[in-house]
Amino acid sequence: MAKPLILVSNDDGISSRGIRILVELMDDLGDVIVVAPDSPQSGMGHAITVGNTLRLDKSDIFGNVPAYACSGTPADCVKLAKHHILTEKQPDLVVSGINHGSNTSISVLYSGTMSAAIEGAIEGSPAIGFSLCDYSAEADFSHVGTSVKKIVLEVLDRGLPNGVALNVNIPRKKEEPLKGIKICRQARAKWQEEFDLRKDPAGRPYFWMAGSFVNFDKGEDNDEWAIAHNYVSVVPCQYDMTAHHAISILNDEWDI
Amino acid sequence: MAKPLILVSNDDGISSRGIRILVELMDDLGDVIVVAPDSPQSGMGHAITVGNTLRLDKSDIFGNVPAYACSGTPADCVKLAKHHILTEKQPDLVVSGINHGSNTSISVLYSGTMSAAIEGAIEGSPAIGFSLCDYSAEADFSHVGTSVKKIVLEVLDRGLPNGVALNVNIPRKKEEPLKGIKICRQARAKWQEEFDLRKDPAGRPYFWMAGSFVNFDKGEDNDEWAIAHNYVSVVPCQYDMTAHHAISILNDEWDI
Repeated sequence: MAKPLILVSNDDGISSRGIRILVELMDDLGDVIVVAPDSPQSGMGHAITVGNTLRLDKSDIFGNVPAYACSGTPADCVKLAKHHILTEKQPDLVVSGINHGSNTSISVLYSGTMSAAIEGAIEGSPAIGFSLCDYSAEADFSHVGTSVKKIVLEVLDRGLPNGVALNVNIPRKKEEPLKGIKICRQARAKWQEEFDLRKDPAGRPYFWMAGSFVNFDKGEDNDEWAIAHNYVSVVPCQYDMTAHHAISILNDEWDI
Repeated sequence: MAKPLILVSNDDGISSRGIRILVELMDDLGDVIVVAPDSPQSGMGHAITVGNTLRLDKSDIFGNVPAYACSGTPADCVKLAKHHILTEKQPDLVVSGINHGSNTSISVLYSGTMSAAIEGAIEGSPAIGFSLCDYSAEADFSHVGTSVKKIVLEVLDRGLPNGVALNVNIPRKKEEPLKGIKICRQARAKWQEEFDLRKDPAGRPYFWMAGSFVNFDKGEDNDEWAIAHNYVSVVPCQYDMTAHHAISILNDEWDI
């Protein structure tokens, strides 16, 4: 049987540790090609490059695994891979990550990691974004391999429902082993921003966005609960953003 | 009765024609404050500025209407407005636009206009993104006022369901008048990218992303149908991206 073709991208950039680990794991499971940003793109959400040019350079950073560094966003990388590089055969799977830091809950909207996965789904491929809930530069990835491979093999074997990409978050390494994998919904939470006002050397004000994550969700079926209880969370995400339940509400209430 | 406080943002930048028209329309309905990007931010999706600084400068571009130009993304603008500028009183409504160009269907994901509105909803305000389906720099906005005001008044009067922001698209000006307003779902469609490969003066390759919009949707209840038939489309959008229907599918099928 032909090995599956696996496209790997991320948002931390092609030289990050997380993507190297993901490439190594995927190399055991299929034929891998990497198209990833040439610089960090965290927080880029589903940005694409319009009104500006894109560069794409071949890279030997992964040895025998073909790789390209792209000047654009994660979504650009997937678009370039699918419409320019992989014109002969579309990937059997798109994976993104492993992100250095959590992409649970509302962070899915801001996440470049997940935008690469969702772009894969828009383009008709099964797609998964992986994140490790540890922002540290020295984060320990040694516990992620088994869950990542298990989830990838399930998706390669069974596919995913149409229009769905998976948002997978993995708890940071603790002494006790991971408890397992939980299919979840996105927790109801938000970032509570604070803006740190400073002065530049010329005396002009500028800001750093800071803030903390606030979880309003009391449920036990969401990704925040899963991570807090040492489970790997898997949230099926869709790019149909319609609030279908609200259509009848507006039709009933509005005088239009 | 106190006039409602209306926060206006956009993604085309504070000096664009579309935001000026929106500010003028909102000025008839409430107390307006503008926080908008200092330069065009089209295609920025739900990007936020992390790992970099933000500038915020007061602007007199709208005369008596208080306004700030921000170096960040549309989502940054709404965050700064809500957490730094409007600390005394939160806005009764967040509006974004009027975008120069369509944000129907899948474009909601890439749209900076809609990210400002969705950020408003995340922060608990009723929120609406407005777009005119005309990319021309000389686009005629003369037909938009009645629909924009009607929708804003409905939302000010009745609010919106929790976690919902509206994606409003207005057909380009035609000879016949607009047929009305339709509550819709997001059409099933995508952008079919093509990458135009060129050489720079030094002989190095670069790309322009181009492509065309492909509508797969045969329904008559979606935003593409509405725009094609000269209706204003209103899609209620949610930031819960969970594909809830897929949770039971994965729980049934997966061996985890």
